[in-house]
Amino acid sequence: MDQHLHQYIDRDRLRADIMQTAEFGMIPVEKGNCRTVLAGTEANRQAREYLVKKLNERGLNVSIDAVGNITGRWVPDNADPAARPVATGSHLDSVIAGGIFDGVLGVYAGLESIRAMQDAACSPDHPIEVVAFTEEEGGRFSDGVLGSSVAIGASSVTDALAITDDSGVTLAEALEEIDFKGEGRLDATTWDSWLELHVEQGTRLEDTAAAGIVTDITGTIRCHIDILGEADHAGTTSMEARTDALVAASELALEIEATTNEIVEAHSETAVGTVGQFDIEPGSINVIPGKVHLGIDIRDVEYESMERIVSSIHRCLDRLESERGVETAFTRPYDIEPISMSERCMTALHNTATQTGISTIDLHSGAGHDTMYIAKATDAGLIFAPSKGGYSHSAAEWTDWSDCATTTRLLAGALYDLATEQAPDDARS
Amino acid sequence: MDQHLHQYIDRDRLRADIMQTAEFGMIPVEKGNCRTVLAGTEANRQAREYLVKKLNERGLNVSIDAVGNITGRWVPDNADPAARPVATGSHLDSVIAGGIFDGVLGVYAGLESIRAMQDAACSPDHPIEVVAFTEEEGGRFSDGVLGSSVAIGASSVTDALAITDDSGVTLAEALEEIDFKGEGRLDATTWDSWLELHVEQGTRLEDTAAAGIVTDITGTIRCHIDILGEADHAGTTSMEARTDALVAASELALEIEATTNEIVEAHSETAVGTVGQFDIEPGSINVIPGKVHLGIDIRDVEYESMERIVSSIHRCLDRLESERGVETAFTRPYDIEPISMSERCMTALHNTATQTGISTIDLHSGAGHDTMYIAKATDAGLIFAPSKGGYSHSAAEWTDWSDCATTTRLLAGALYDLATEQAPDDARS
Repeated sequence: MDQHLHQYIDRDRLRADIMQTAEFGMIPVEKGNCRTVLAGTEANRQAREYLVKKLNERGLNVSIDAVGNITGRWVPDNADPAARPVATGSHLDSVIAGGIFDGVLGVYAGLESIRAMQDAACSPDHPIEVVAFTEEEGGRFSDGVLGSSVAIGASSVTDALAITDDSGVTLAEALEEIDFKGEGRLDATTWDSWLELHVEQGTRLEDTAAAGIVTDITGTIRCHIDILGEADHAGTTSMEARTDALVAASELALEIEATTNEIVEAHSETAVGTVGQFDIEPGSINVIPGKVHLGIDIRDVEYESMERIVSSIHRCLDRLESERGVETAFTRPYDIEPISMSERCMTALHNTATQTGISTIDLHSGAGHDTMYIAKATDAGLIFAPSKGGYSHSAAEWTDWSDCATTTRLLAGALYDLATEQAPDDARS
Repeated sequence: MDQHLHQYIDRDRLRADIMQTAEFGMIPVEKGNCRTVLAGTEANRQAREYLVKKLNERGLNVSIDAVGNITGRWVPDNADPAARPVATGSHLDSVIAGGIFDGVLGVYAGLESIRAMQDAACSPDHPIEVVAFTEEEGGRFSDGVLGSSVAIGASSVTDALAITDDSGVTLAEALEEIDFKGEGRLDATTWDSWLELHVEQGTRLEDTAAAGIVTDITGTIRCHIDILGEADHAGTTSMEARTDALVAASELALEIEATTNEIVEAHSETAVGTVGQFDIEPGSINVIPGKVHLGIDIRDVEYESMERIVSSIHRCLDRLESERGVETAFTRPYDIEPISMSERCMTALHNTATQTGISTIDLHSGAGHDTMYIAKATDAGLIFAPSKGGYSHSAAEWTDWSDCATTTRLLAGALYDLATEQAPDDARS
């Protein structure tokens, strides 16, 4: 990297952008900072318009694609405009009552990296693009990572635009409403490479390093299970005569925990298995539960261990059917394999860290982020900034401004390296 | 009993009353018969007015007390009006979308018993009263058995009238609205004895006997438990770092089942323990559950075994706190001891069954019914009529008309015996 570039990262400028964005969709809270910015809402329009204004201020060429993905393109003086761009960014939308760093840090760290290169008079060989993807959180129209799934061709523009929210509004209508339905399709396969900076949303960086360099993003399998027993009077139905869906479902929840712990112990310490949804019917204190719906989330950096957990679920359901007389139904509507970050991107990040004295650790990501999809289309890397206490998706989400700036320095240096055809050793000395 | 009395029980007359009552609050269903008759509603007014009309037709003296309990008093020609009355009855209200026999059978079987005695020219020595208690089901104003709790003095008239429904209407206002807020307080301690006929709501009578003679009503303990863990990201929180409230609550549910099964095996086969409420927060597929609320219902004819189950819950909560790091909160807002039916009432029922050739079995009741309270105030007995398939509180609730008539014969004969000072052997021969 250019040895002076990191000095041009302006913490206060970055902070001003994040704090201004925090105003849009802000929810007043006693402690912390809270916002709700669902895709295609008025708050989302405000956040998008502010970004466009800031991109324009630095002369970036702004384009909006058909699903509302925003791109700000910078072609440095020495760059070949036809060269494959190096891209960076994240998202502006939030979960309901989310925090102010998740997504926003990555977008403005990308812009700040370009501003710093401009201010330092650095001129890499490739164009650099800053991207804000639509609907990463999945708070309104989808299960999430919608804009990036379109950008790699995993979802079609037509399908994405036709998705409706709970009140029947399509993504197309919502984007038109806020004047952010553009044309064409952002195509991540045309990029040279991609880097995303995101808050960790965990505690591994606390007290260990200023930044995390992600090596792998876990895959995610989601299973939905119905367990059907018989709803009966809790007082008049003997223990022997009942088919209690709740106790059967409780066995399954404990089986998932035990199997996952075994896998962590013996095979893959990054495996996690969670029953996050557990809805019982009828739910009256004097009625034996007749039905339980479970929603299960399984992740690991090794697909094999995820499959082991799914197999243990099937074995457990078979046993519950034969031993407890319940009926069960299983679906697996969401299945994404783990993906590794590219060696080239990780090398660029490690080199920058070494040269600028930023302490880092290598770690995996248990959350997908847009990079999970982009890594299928181009060389990709992911940086984590420390999250105080690991809190995220809440008002307690916090990353110190110094950590925001440090990780942005890491991002800027690596972007410069990736965008520079040959970075001769003498340029660094 | 009078040997001819049972011939005067008129199945069609009883059926007409039950089917007419089924019209009030009727819910159209494809299969079965369904009604919603909450206390103090228009449907409840119609059911009450029809009962008053039928009581008047037979010259009974009708009174309504301050909480809406209806009494129809018959003083036979030979009876001393000052003698303690023998009482019978049940309730007219239903659960939401309930069946047509639950409660109604007991009220009209009581009236039919008096009609049969009148038609057979039987004249017992004590007055006989037919009672319809207010709010047995607890569908609107209370946890249930409200009218009978006032009739034994367990609740005061003032307190009962002040109870509000979900929209803030008091029982007093609702009863005034339907013109059934009377005066005074029905006092069950003034009764000689009490018999209630009710549908079994279970399957023990199916294929075994025409009627069940209840020996004991189980007690009921209800516990409410909160288990507090930590809501965290399902992907970024390692198995080791999580405090999952759901898996802790699952252990508790299985512990309650296991302990109850052990008690059934070794101590008391009538014990039941049920987790009927199990509400998790936040309930998102990608968030580790931070809180579970459990509602638990424990019943048995022996209070000691109920206490054993509660003790096992406490031990389990202690273990979950120390092993899993969750916090727990326990309350026990509902605690009613088991109660035995009076020997005198059971003898009257057994004698009648023998004399009329009605097959019976002795059984316990896992549900409380108004008799649970009345048994604290006077000699009480409870008869069960067979429930097809055990279904109750639903459109599938059904008792054959022949079974309704047979159990009413049992009721009428036992009422006559109880109301007759000395039933010399020669009167039966």
